[in-house]
Amino acid sequence: MGHTVREIADSIGARAEGDLDLVIRRASEPASAGPDDLAMASTPKYAGMLSQGQARVAMLWPGADWQSLGLRAAILPERPRFAMSGLTRMLDPGQGFAAGIHPSAVIDDSAELGEGVSVGPLAVISAGARIGANSVIGPQCFIGMDAVLGPDCFLREMVSIGARVQIGARFIAQPGARIGGDGFSFVTPEAGAVEHARKTLGDQGTARPQSWARIHSLGAVTIGDDVEIGMNTTVDSGTIRDTRIGNGTKLDCQIQIGHNVVVGNDTLICAQVGIAGSSVIGNNVVLGGQSGISDNIFVGDRVILGAGTKALSNVPAGRTMLGYPATQMENQLEIYKALRRLPRLLREVASLRKVVSKSDGDD
Amino acid sequence: MGHTVREIADSIGARAEGDLDLVIRRASEPASAGPDDLAMASTPKYAGMLSQGQARVAMLWPGADWQSLGLRAAILPERPRFAMSGLTRMLDPGQGFAAGIHPSAVIDDSAELGEGVSVGPLAVISAGARIGANSVIGPQCFIGMDAVLGPDCFLREMVSIGARVQIGARFIAQPGARIGGDGFSFVTPEAGAVEHARKTLGDQGTARPQSWARIHSLGAVTIGDDVEIGMNTTVDSGTIRDTRIGNGTKLDCQIQIGHNVVVGNDTLICAQVGIAGSSVIGNNVVLGGQSGISDNIFVGDRVILGAGTKALSNVPAGRTMLGYPATQMENQLEIYKALRRLPRLLREVASLRKVVSKSDGDD
Amino acid sequence: MGHTVREIADSIGARAEGDLDLVIRRASEPASAGPDDLAMASTPKYAGMLSQGQARVAMLWPGADWQSLGLRAAILPERPRFAMSGLTRMLDPGQGFAAGIHPSAVIDDSAELGEGVSVGPLAVISAGARIGANSVIGPQCFIGMDAVLGPDCFLREMVSIGARVQIGARFIAQPGARIGGDGFSFVTPEAGAVEHARKTLGDQGTARPQSWARIHSLGAVTIGDDVEIGMNTTVDSGTIRDTRIGNGTKLDCQIQIGHNVVVGNDTLICAQVGIAGSSVIGNNVVLGGQSGISDNIFVGDRVILGAGTKALSNVPAGRTMLGYPATQMENQLEIYKALRRLPRLLREVASLRKVVSKSDGDD
Repeated sequence: MGHTVREIADSIGARAEGDLDLVIRRASEPASAGPDDLAMASTPKYAGMLSQGQARVAMLWPGADWQSLGLRAAILPERPRFAMSGLTRMLDPGQGFAAGIHPSAVIDDSAELGEGVSVGPLAVISAGARIGANSVIGPQCFIGMDAVLGPDCFLREMVSIGARVQIGARFIAQPGARIGGDGFSFVTPEAGAVEHARKTLGDQGTARPQSWARIHSLGAVTIGDDVEIGMNTTVDSGTIRDTRIGNGTKLDCQIQIGHNVVVGNDTLICAQVGIAGSSVIGNNVVLGGQSGISDNIFVGDRVILGAGTKALSNVPAGRTMLGYPATQMENQLEIYKALRRLPRLLREVASLRKVVSKSDGDD
Repeated sequence: MGHTVREIADSIGARAEGDLDLVIRRASEPASAGPDDLAMASTPKYAGMLSQGQARVAMLWPGADWQSLGLRAAILPERPRFAMSGLTRMLDPGQGFAAGIHPSAVIDDSAELGEGVSVGPLAVISAGARIGANSVIGPQCFIGMDAVLGPDCFLREMVSIGARVQIGARFIAQPGARIGGDGFSFVTPEAGAVEHARKTLGDQGTARPQSWARIHSLGAVTIGDDVEIGMNTTVDSGTIRDTRIGNGTKLDCQIQIGHNVVVGNDTLICAQVGIAGSSVIGNNVVLGGQSGISDNIFVGDRVILGAGTKALSNVPAGRTMLGYPATQMENQLEIYKALRRLPRLLREVASLRKVVSKSDGDD
Repeated sequence: MGHTVREIADSIGARAEGDLDLVIRRASEPASAGPDDLAMASTPKYAGMLSQGQARVAMLWPGADWQSLGLRAAILPERPRFAMSGLTRMLDPGQGFAAGIHPSAVIDDSAELGEGVSVGPLAVISAGARIGANSVIGPQCFIGMDAVLGPDCFLREMVSIGARVQIGARFIAQPGARIGGDGFSFVTPEAGAVEHARKTLGDQGTARPQSWARIHSLGAVTIGDDVEIGMNTTVDSGTIRDTRIGNGTKLDCQIQIGHNVVVGNDTLICAQVGIAGSSVIGNNVVLGGQSGISDNIFVGDRVILGAGTKALSNVPAGRTMLGYPATQMENQLEIYKALRRLPRLLREVASLRKVVSKSDGDD
């Protein structure tokens, strides 16, 4: 298997120059590329490593002088980073999941599988579930009662989807992703210490310790089209209505989405982010790794949170935030700089105080 | 299927008024409620949305004027939030797991299953395991050798319970919860850089780099009655004795409980919390989302940690803490306010210094 | 089953004194030890609890006066903490996984299993996979197409290994560990707000909101010898080349390793750590629980990060860091102390300002 330089360039809509009939087997980094590899060198820095490898073809940048790099051909996309999307789709060797229904899968008679659906070994599909055409249910997956998946979905191994979850088209789930566990919602018979501490910002009041009663999740989860969910990410069911994730939103690994949360469209959530119950996240938001969103707050469209940011209150649309607690990034960076000088500042103020009290006393 | 208003009110011990024979099919939010739905409107704010929906019955608050809201009946619990517990239990449609032992489950001959136990498709129950009466082992679960579960437990899909783990009655585990992996305990042949840095608070000493030797976990995990564990949460086995979780304690998703940890009764742990090895957490504690507890420390009864708080040293009983490092909440909030003024403070002190040194020099 | 005191001491290379023929059944904590248990009492504090139990033999420290503790024998290792490694290996009761290939496992005809390999119930081994001699594939595990595991590996239940992943000898994976999910790599057709905000440290520029295009992972994951991976930890595949983890490195539970990351040898990573894409971590590094490493940065050999530390930029070799953002530990501890005095400092500066402006005005 292989692709000519021409085929690749045509497929991703990029300009190509040189010997367009050379055949490419795979993509490589410049320094380790073999003679049949396409070296990925989107900047002059990477191109400088081409001489350490054997590539005859590279993907460079617009106007790159590929001949002087000793190449026989080059692909020159307008935006090399975006070209990676088409290129990697073309060259992806995939997981090799077999087509068709594996005989070891346990599929309820009342489940409806669209045309071209494949189901891996030891997967379970429950009563009333519906799987859209050409979707792939990976090995050892679980699809709950009355759950609905759209067409062209791709579930890796050991994904679990709870009862009544609804998911759109082209959904991708990485291994161990879990949709539709019960929300974490407990209540004490009488108002308790947490409710008091939230109101007073710290005081627990005099409530006696109590046991917790469970609030069941009557809702499920509704997910739009073109959503991707990473390994071991978890999405809770809603209490009364569904937890919702919009179209085109992408979730990395080990993210927790609490009950009743609403996430908008085309939002990007990095690994290990937590969004607590009932918060609302807008469209085109980017949440950096390990950031956190408190419960019952609002994060507006186009907000960007830097890595580790903890949003404890609403964030207006368009803001770029950093830190714990979340602060506008430029202010936070100024605070971080000031913090490094804080121990010295304390000493300076102490000595100022001495001088002033002395001169003040001298008056 | 449905319940009359009278049945619902009786079941949750709440007052009801109006046409008590109306039949309710499900609970809904006020704005989207249909004519056979019970609208959940525990505050005047939510009640204001009733006119956008078609509900004829709502759950309101004590003394609410339901007639003026256009309703034909109302349920008026003393504490609406607590009433949610009974109501949602009554209306929960569940996961639809079938009763009985699925023929595809792999159950060792020496395992003992109590009366009324059900085991889902492709679950594994190992030698010597004992499952209490009426417990539900979900699809694709794993129960290890000699593990013991009490009666009336409910395990969702893909839960795994390691060898010798002991769990009480009415345990609930969400998908992917994992109990009894080996603890993370490694040691170098000679005292290493970490041991030195801990003693000196930063200096690594001169130890040469070494490889790590594994300390095996001889203990397992012991869990009390009425415990719930969220999706993909992990609980490590103890080194010599068991890691322990008390009665009535609830764990959200993606929590990590380290080896030898002891968690008390009726404690609530929110998503993505980590508790490092050998720490002890009291009763009626609440740990906010993404908070963390260092190893070998003590967190007293009724402590509340706000979201993201990192407790690096002991926390006395009854404290409400926030921040990294954990600080009493009222002090931390004062510090956060002061931080926003810190860059300006630096400039002010610099200008004060100029004035003072000038006036000092003028003396 | 049991071991004499002599056998245990010989096995771990420690000195023993007293009745070396006493037979030990298991290890225990001093206070709860029975008459056939070996009490673990590596310090005088723990030895003080021996009188609460019934132990006749204890593991103590060099030169301990075991007779005065009422014991009949003692094991006296040079470094008791290191002796725990050998001792717990000897006494580990294990998970009881059966030898051989369970008939319910689904193994592709083209997979190659070395001598002595065992495969648990309902495990899946895909086409072209190769498993080294004496390795144990636990119940309900998944091994992807063309994946390679070395000899003497041990996989607990529900571990998943993606296509083309390569792992060395003596690998240990705890339940739910996931290797080789696709990396989280998305790009917009035109340069977007995040790219702009990164360059300007906060300003999002004027890019219109766009949808995300997926960059596929063409690489997989390469893991060295003697690596251990904790429960529900996830390791992403690389984009062009493999994500890599060196020899002797140990990962705790719920860690996320991003695409293209390189982790060195003998590095210890504690629970819930996240390492973002393309970062490079050296040898003999220790990353404390819940710490985080930004993408595309470098963390040198022997770096230690305290719990919760967020490294947002490169960390030179040998540094001990703490806090968010990561700061040298001794400086950070000074900053933390100063922060507690910050609200008071603000008031002091305000009053200084008054005095100075008054005295300044008086001039």
